[in-house]
Amino acid sequence: MLYEITLPQFKKTLLNLSKILDKANAHAQVKKFDFTVLLNARLAPDQFPLVRQIQIACDTAKLGAARLSGKDAPTHDDQEKTFEDVQKRIKETINYLETISAKDFAQSETKRITQPRWEGKYLTGFDYVNEHVLPNLYFHVTTAYSILRHNGVDIGKKDYLGELPFKN
Amino acid sequence: MLYEITLPQFKKTLLNLSKILDKANAHAQVKKFDFTVLLNARLAPDQFPLVRQIQIACDTAKLGAARLSGKDAPTHDDQEKTFEDVQKRIKETINYLETISAKDFAQSETKRITQPRWEGKYLTGFDYVNEHVLPNLYFHVTTAYSILRHNGVDIGKKDYLGELPFKN
Repeated sequence: MLYEITLPQFKKTLLNLSKILDKANAHAQVKKFDFTVLLNARLAPDQFPLVRQIQIACDTAKLGAARLSGKDAPTHDDQEKTFEDVQKRIKETINYLETISAKDFAQSETKRITQPRWEGKYLTGFDYVNEHVLPNLYFHVTTAYSILRHNGVDIGKKDYLGELPFKN
Repeated sequence: MLYEITLPQFKKTLLNLSKILDKANAHAQVKKFDFTVLLNARLAPDQFPLVRQIQIACDTAKLGAARLSGKDAPTHDDQEKTFEDVQKRIKETINYLETISAKDFAQSETKRITQPRWEGKYLTGFDYVNEHVLPNLYFHVTTAYSILRHNGVDIGKKDYLGELPFKN
């Protein structure tokens, strides 16, 4: 079950972010400013800039999938500096997510998930997904979105949500 | 299953928002400005201000729970003007959510969910939760958070996530 509420939505959300960044890049070209201005933009002096929001969004999905499935994830050194760099980061993350199937998530709900900064404590896979991974993923994608909105990029809620699977 | 990944997290997230607003109110008092300045603040001229972000966050949880459970929700007329008003709105929403139990969500995964603006189309309960309600709830709470961060309120990711149910 955890697979169905995570992996498809991880991929969709990162793809939406990628398309939002396409719009931001087009905006920068029209306005004739360097896209790196946006990558370094932030909403508060002590909040991470756009580039870091993108990196963390990618890592939230990547490490979430890796911890729940036990399948090693590619490493990234957070050196992205350009539009092409951040798009490559997103693409590589989605490519990794594509390698993970529902059966890799067997028993993931009760799996003990931990990371170094939790000092030996753990969350169950279920709690990790619902109280940590999903809120964090949406947090960083929304913050990236807000930084761009604040800087005049013409995007809306639909860009964030993507297409919905409506039925007639 | 949909109950477990929605209602507890709806309540927790709205409670986190309430506590964030407490911090914002304390900040306004220390800085000696009226809290309504924050309620009217926004990150872009064509984006909703804080008060509307709070209202939509509440309605996303309330209407999500109502549509999935079939239990009527209280109506709200979106006239909140003060700190007390928005806290009351959040409290009433949480109180309504408390009336809903896991058994009210029976068959909710395959239930056909619609709303007037979808013009007769529908989402399954499962898709509605994962692709609409959860991303929207986190979107509006994160945007509320970002508006406050941008205006100097001393909050961090922990305030957004709340306590995590760590085990030893």
